[in-house]
Amino acid sequence: MIDTPYLLFLGDAPDQLAAKVAQGIRDWRPEYAVGQFRLPGCKADLGLPDMTLDEAKAAGAKTLVVGVANRGGIISEAWKEALDAALAQGFDLASGLHNLLRDEPALVEAARTHGRSLHDVRIPTVKYPIANGEKRSGKRCLAIGTDCSVGKMYTGLAMDRVMKDRGLKSSFRATGQTGILITGEGVPLDAVIADFMAGAVEWLTPENDADHWDHIEGQGSLFHVSYSGVTMALIHGGQPDAIVLCHEPTRTHMRGLPGYQLPSLEALRDMVLPIARIANPDVKVIGVSVNTKAMPEDEARALLADIETRMGLPATDPYRFGAEPLVEALLAS
Amino acid sequence: MIDTPYLLFLGDAPDQLAAKVAQGIRDWRPEYAVGQFRLPGCKADLGLPDMTLDEAKAAGAKTLVVGVANRGGIISEAWKEALDAALAQGFDLASGLHNLLRDEPALVEAARTHGRSLHDVRIPTVKYPIANGEKRSGKRCLAIGTDCSVGKMYTGLAMDRVMKDRGLKSSFRATGQTGILITGEGVPLDAVIADFMAGAVEWLTPENDADHWDHIEGQGSLFHVSYSGVTMALIHGGQPDAIVLCHEPTRTHMRGLPGYQLPSLEALRDMVLPIARIANPDVKVIGVSVNTKAMPEDEARALLADIETRMGLPATDPYRFGAEPLVEALLAS
Repeated sequence: MIDTPYLLFLGDAPDQLAAKVAQGIRDWRPEYAVGQFRLPGCKADLGLPDMTLDEAKAAGAKTLVVGVANRGGIISEAWKEALDAALAQGFDLASGLHNLLRDEPALVEAARTHGRSLHDVRIPTVKYPIANGEKRSGKRCLAIGTDCSVGKMYTGLAMDRVMKDRGLKSSFRATGQTGILITGEGVPLDAVIADFMAGAVEWLTPENDADHWDHIEGQGSLFHVSYSGVTMALIHGGQPDAIVLCHEPTRTHMRGLPGYQLPSLEALRDMVLPIARIANPDVKVIGVSVNTKAMPEDEARALLADIETRMGLPATDPYRFGAEPLVEALLAS
Repeated sequence: MIDTPYLLFLGDAPDQLAAKVAQGIRDWRPEYAVGQFRLPGCKADLGLPDMTLDEAKAAGAKTLVVGVANRGGIISEAWKEALDAALAQGFDLASGLHNLLRDEPALVEAARTHGRSLHDVRIPTVKYPIANGEKRSGKRCLAIGTDCSVGKMYTGLAMDRVMKDRGLKSSFRATGQTGILITGEGVPLDAVIADFMAGAVEWLTPENDADHWDHIEGQGSLFHVSYSGVTMALIHGGQPDAIVLCHEPTRTHMRGLPGYQLPSLEALRDMVLPIARIANPDVKVIGVSVNTKAMPEDEARALLADIETRMGLPATDPYRFGAEPLVEALLAS
């Protein structure tokens, strides 16, 4: 577990997109985000108060979260200086970067000196078991995408929030770095050893109350040849009772694969159901989540209406128009 | 690459099954297997000459291969003594054990002193890329099983041998520890990090002559919830042109999963084809390989005839009755 709340480190982010991780935390756990810490030249802004380390400490922040992608895969001298100062000030550090905090000798030394923790959330810290496939009590919902990065995490977070707001039993189960930094825990599934992927998902979604729902963060896509094995492990380790199909309608080809077209939502449904039934014969596709960010509202609403008619399922953009239709379908399932 | 030929170390194997890895090498690369090296109490016998290290050295052996599963996950003192003596004698060591040669300080030190190599084939030695999904020249055949351990490796090896005997261009591409020790190279796919699985398979089966066939060793099963993600990565990284369905007809449930029934060959075919078509729209199921070891010959032949009729595909036990029908179907495809 990573101590909250956070001070969000944006470094010298060249644009808003580079601060995507921090943006996710700010969007979904504003109560964890006491402020932002920016270096000269930073082009990202989360609309949070800019704070010095002293001010953030006084405001209760416990962990400095590196919420920004670094340039060229290295932690720059300017960053190191800031991270070092944070450790000296009594902050833990958390990061989802490919290059690890623990691989920086100066940070390791400073953390030891000041008795602080370095959290590299991209690295598994648990020895996961091999999946045993046994049925677990409680309910699970998995977001499955036509492609990578179509809004699976936002879908799960939005459904979890609606359920919690209604006083229902619900957990968001993070499987990627941003999700882990949002919730403070989870499994960095893309970094798990092949044999243990499904077991890691079982571990992440253990037995629970019969009326409790896990919202499992999806990864990759069955149709994305680079990452489909990770998606498969989520389906067979997660044993979902309910599946939400996720889609981004303006994508012209599979992310990073110019030669591959996106499947239709119908093709995705027809592929995922037989696979998911192996682990849970009662699984149902309960709705469709569409990321309409790139569309005007009238077009977005028309598209959602069309999908509802075509597929006989509720369809929404859960971040833009609310996740209620998906939660209603979940509870009715 | 691991230097050949091998002296096969059987240690104090409690039974023949414990020496399964050595058996695989002996069955498929007898030219690599100059002899066996057994400790007192060994209950396994490959029918090879028992040799001392001196005798094996004189016979040309370059590498001592640990071809036996160890008890309790530790390398015993008796083993260490033998392995240490082999290094001193000028042998490299190769092992697919879970506990690694490189984690034994005495062996590491002895290898350094004598200028020898330690090959832990269960550990990837290559930084594999993320799969790019691009079409590669050459042809690929993948063995896909109804379950784990149903004869996928033996199927690929048998087809490769028939093709090589006919002077055709063919490679067996190992994806597991025994396969790697048989061929001297390959990818230990179950130990690869999730994000790089499909990329590792692309790396293993690169561009080749248009009439060259890779026989890719299968792993796991789409229907085995513990390992299905690995199977998925083989399909999407391997982009097979041809698929051979593999089956063991006496299995009563999925290996290690008492609650899961085996799928029919028809169900396997219907699941694998849509998945494989994502990476290669022209993929075909070209035949069925049945491991009939546990059946009398007349029953085995009757079963194969029945499968041929039901599925309209050639069916054989490639190890018992020959892989020719599968190779014929491959060449006709």
